[in-house]
Amino acid sequence: MRKSIATVSLSGSLSEKLTAVAAAGFDGVEIFENDLLTSPLSPEQVRLRAADLGLRIELYQPFRDFEAVPDDVLAGNLRRAERKFALMERLGADLLLVCSNVSAEARDDDALAAGQLHRLAELAAGFGIRIAYEALAWGRHVSTYDHAWRIVERADHPGLGTCLDSFHILSRGSDPKGIEDIPGEKIFFLQLADAPRVAMDVLQWSRHYRCFPGQGGFDIAGLAAHAVRAGYRGPLSLEVFNDVFRQADAGRTAVDALRSLIGLEESAGLAALPAPVVPSGFAFAELAAADTEPLRGLLAGLGFTRSGRHTAKPVELWRQGEARVLLNTAGGHRRDGACLAALGLDTADPVAATWRAESLLAPVVPRRRGPAESPLDAIAAPDGTELFFCGTPQPGRPGWTGDFTDLEDTAAEPIGVTRIDHVAMTQPWHHFDEASLFYRTVLGLRPDESLDLADPYGLFRSRAVANTEGTVRIALNVAPGPGDQELRPQHIALATDDLVTTVRRWRERGGAALRIPGNYYDDLDARHALDPQTLAVLRELDILYDRDEHGEFLHCYTPTVGRVFFELVQRTSGYRGYGAQNATVRLAAQHTGQQQPA
Amino acid sequence: MRKSIATVSLSGSLSEKLTAVAAAGFDGVEIFENDLLTSPLSPEQVRLRAADLGLRIELYQPFRDFEAVPDDVLAGNLRRAERKFALMERLGADLLLVCSNVSAEARDDDALAAGQLHRLAELAAGFGIRIAYEALAWGRHVSTYDHAWRIVERADHPGLGTCLDSFHILSRGSDPKGIEDIPGEKIFFLQLADAPRVAMDVLQWSRHYRCFPGQGGFDIAGLAAHAVRAGYRGPLSLEVFNDVFRQADAGRTAVDALRSLIGLEESAGLAALPAPVVPSGFAFAELAAADTEPLRGLLAGLGFTRSGRHTAKPVELWRQGEARVLLNTAGGHRRDGACLAALGLDTADPVAATWRAESLLAPVVPRRRGPAESPLDAIAAPDGTELFFCGTPQPGRPGWTGDFTDLEDTAAEPIGVTRIDHVAMTQPWHHFDEASLFYRTVLGLRPDESLDLADPYGLFRSRAVANTEGTVRIALNVAPGPGDQELRPQHIALATDDLVTTVRRWRERGGAALRIPGNYYDDLDARHALDPQTLAVLRELDILYDRDEHGEFLHCYTPTVGRVFFELVQRTSGYRGYGAQNATVRLAAQHTGQQQPA
Repeated sequence: MRKSIATVSLSGSLSEKLTAVAAAGFDGVEIFENDLLTSPLSPEQVRLRAADLGLRIELYQPFRDFEAVPDDVLAGNLRRAERKFALMERLGADLLLVCSNVSAEARDDDALAAGQLHRLAELAAGFGIRIAYEALAWGRHVSTYDHAWRIVERADHPGLGTCLDSFHILSRGSDPKGIEDIPGEKIFFLQLADAPRVAMDVLQWSRHYRCFPGQGGFDIAGLAAHAVRAGYRGPLSLEVFNDVFRQADAGRTAVDALRSLIGLEESAGLAALPAPVVPSGFAFAELAAADTEPLRGLLAGLGFTRSGRHTAKPVELWRQGEARVLLNTAGGHRRDGACLAALGLDTADPVAATWRAESLLAPVVPRRRGPAESPLDAIAAPDGTELFFCGTPQPGRPGWTGDFTDLEDTAAEPIGVTRIDHVAMTQPWHHFDEASLFYRTVLGLRPDESLDLADPYGLFRSRAVANTEGTVRIALNVAPGPGDQELRPQHIALATDDLVTTVRRWRERGGAALRIPGNYYDDLDARHALDPQTLAVLRELDILYDRDEHGEFLHCYTPTVGRVFFELVQRTSGYRGYGAQNATVRLAAQHTGQQQPA
Repeated sequence: MRKSIATVSLSGSLSEKLTAVAAAGFDGVEIFENDLLTSPLSPEQVRLRAADLGLRIELYQPFRDFEAVPDDVLAGNLRRAERKFALMERLGADLLLVCSNVSAEARDDDALAAGQLHRLAELAAGFGIRIAYEALAWGRHVSTYDHAWRIVERADHPGLGTCLDSFHILSRGSDPKGIEDIPGEKIFFLQLADAPRVAMDVLQWSRHYRCFPGQGGFDIAGLAAHAVRAGYRGPLSLEVFNDVFRQADAGRTAVDALRSLIGLEESAGLAALPAPVVPSGFAFAELAAADTEPLRGLLAGLGFTRSGRHTAKPVELWRQGEARVLLNTAGGHRRDGACLAALGLDTADPVAATWRAESLLAPVVPRRRGPAESPLDAIAAPDGTELFFCGTPQPGRPGWTGDFTDLEDTAAEPIGVTRIDHVAMTQPWHHFDEASLFYRTVLGLRPDESLDLADPYGLFRSRAVANTEGTVRIALNVAPGPGDQELRPQHIALATDDLVTTVRRWRERGGAALRIPGNYYDDLDARHALDPQTLAVLRELDILYDRDEHGEFLHCYTPTVGRVFFELVQRTSGYRGYGAQNATVRLAAQHTGQQQPA
């Protein structure tokens, strides 16, 4: 189906918005009146600009407070409408959105509303324009889609139809199934917006917190499917009011937006995409730093062995059990010290995975492969981390480790690390929702609920995505505000089957976990009544503790190098979380550590 | 009354918080459990630190989900409580806050709740500890203060009282008058927090949007007065959960917090302050710049005459009618170009005004007065702007203009500017609520409602403060996020009685107003049906138009120099606003102007 977006969904001037919408690949736009009023371009110039960019102007909006008014008010409203029709002629727009009246002048009289809308449609017809009537969730007398439709039906004018908006419908708890009772040709327009499920004033919710389909809590795909079953054949159009998107880069938001519509078409069964190839594990995590010496020391202490060197690049492979960490010394341009540059994902079919990623607008990272290297496809995640699709080695197709020559020069005694349990990455403040949609649609990972975590200097939000087996888990965090790179820590959590033994071994070779305050253990005692011996060991080793209905979680942290630190974790009996309960203590301890002399 | 604040209200580590609270001048603190858990200080060390700082630990909190539970759960809860009592002994805290149970295990049984709270109070008594029971607004069975009090009354233990929290009481719409029916000695604690009046889930509202008394929409002073009339003699204690305060500088937030309590004591009739001396007009606005040449050109074009030079400082006085602008060339350290450095306020009694400001913790600006200069007291506003209290000249007390020697060297023909109508200043993102409380309490100005204004690159919030006569008006704006200085424009609005003539004269001497898009005027025609001639003149001169129920507003803008621009305004028939309707158009036009070659 055609794909469109309202200009109000993006940041910038009208001209910037049109450029971003076209570059992302949309077919059309809704022109939001304020964007035109504030533009130095005349309507004719906007029409030309849109045409040059290959964008159809699907709709002009909004026209407010028109129907069900006394006669003297109607005269003024018709005059106002006529001015807008003249404008739309210049703009080349042939569909006007009329929102249900919110003013005190409106009467609760469907016959009056229908009659006046008929008259408006008749006037519009003279300009070659049609009218799409929409129920605002906070409309004075008309606030549900079925009520708006009854009025349109009663008005009975070929140039008058209804506009459905998923936010207005779902935020009121209306059942979208009734959409199928509307003749498809009378659904003139379909606006799609998701939103987090929060209990708040619906006007505030609508104006500030909408998001793209798949980023909130509503079933937008289901709603769109109802409209298509009803016979709707117009565009799928995004209309999102969001305080964050208003500030973010328009080009990037437009891509995020189009990805959400492509994903929606798939979910709604309206279009087929290459099936997701859900990664089955972490092949590696790659750290980059201009000076990798501190990371080498840390990895060696943690029982990793430097087992290989890339044949063509300044990259080392460190491993322990199934945990593999690459150290890339070609990170001289990175001023922020060590950072997580890439993740390798075990992928049954890398070609299919890349194909899906491309169809969902994920940027494919330009190849820098030497002639003898194994093919390795990579895409860029929203925070810039490169994601490599690593295929299982097969006859005739060497695995990615084939590009490394064997080394055993620093063979260390392992301390019990078995694999990478999860990685955590702090996302750019403006792109948190983009990230969770990206991992869900592109990689087929399943998102958890969002959590608020208290850092001493502000609240974090955190949301994890994982595969069904829990063998790939990525925690996406977002810092309290738009900040600098150094405020965006990243970490790699390493699994062990026996954390106490692992930590003791680490200590024997000089390791020291992040110090946890004694008060934390007093509270642990009060809350969980652990046996005194266990508690004493946790306290001694600075190990944190959590439990859920499935099992227990033990974890501790290394010092931070650049933006990166490691976590050592032990899950028992199917514990599902990430120790969120303890995040505040960990964050405070990290701040304390930074304030103390090393 | 003693003044206290909960550590959760401030940003940082426990140690930083205690320091900030003491430095601001509070008498005590509530220790919020998470702040202790995350601190490397032992309870004994915290006790010593507080004592050294002269702070009393008024309360330890919160203890959750205790009462009205089955017997087996009670045993665990009592064990948990005993651990906390032991901790409080080490901490030197003798009052524990118990919040009404929110867990699914709680029963709706007042007798059971009362009996178990009695048992808890008995256990606490052995540690010399008392219990303050509080109804959370989202408590499972106990969610109102009168219900909590009935349970406390029924439990009938001398060591058990109630804690009143203004947020929990007012957010539910309870009538606080009933507080007077509680014996004062049974009100063990009084927690104060304000909040903006928004319709949203009460838990979210409470956890993220609380603010200090006087910064929100509730009558906190009235509630405190009820408690005092009931006989409450404990501290007034602030407990504010706020996402912004969590990020802001703790020292500064603590001062803002204490100012709110001082103002509350005055409003509630609990303490007397020097009466406010409301300013009656703008004596001057002072602009500072390393290079004032662009400002000189702008002022001369606008019909200002350079009429004086300061006898001792590199400051010029420019005037037209009663509008006075000072140009300070000692601004060489200001990298951000021209900025608004100070405002002079006509003040009947500068000494009394300064006295009040000091009693409300406003920083008095160190004097840099020469021996022959007139006395001029100044305080610093939250954004750093200096506010000078300028007394009316009297025999024996020369006015501030006496420090300027007369000049008429650039005598310009006036263009009709009569006085300063208002000034607008963009506030630091973390300190918007602080600013409106400051202007209200320190200067006695009256705040308007907050408005959201759409800039192409994000939403602004704006709130004006003014005196009753409308002769001093200050618009406080806050940018979309924590940003740089240059993103914080400031402007001075100059009044005229005939804007069209004023703009024509300005044009004759080469002035050019900010270009307003033609689309704006088409829309003005559609909305207001102005007569075609008027509309044509507005369009020709780039004048914006607004109206309210009182009158009309015409305004236009100069180009921006550094962070500063001027507005020319004409109010008719008592129009009260600031043309907020047009802010989006103006902001977009300013962005457009910056993107085009000058």
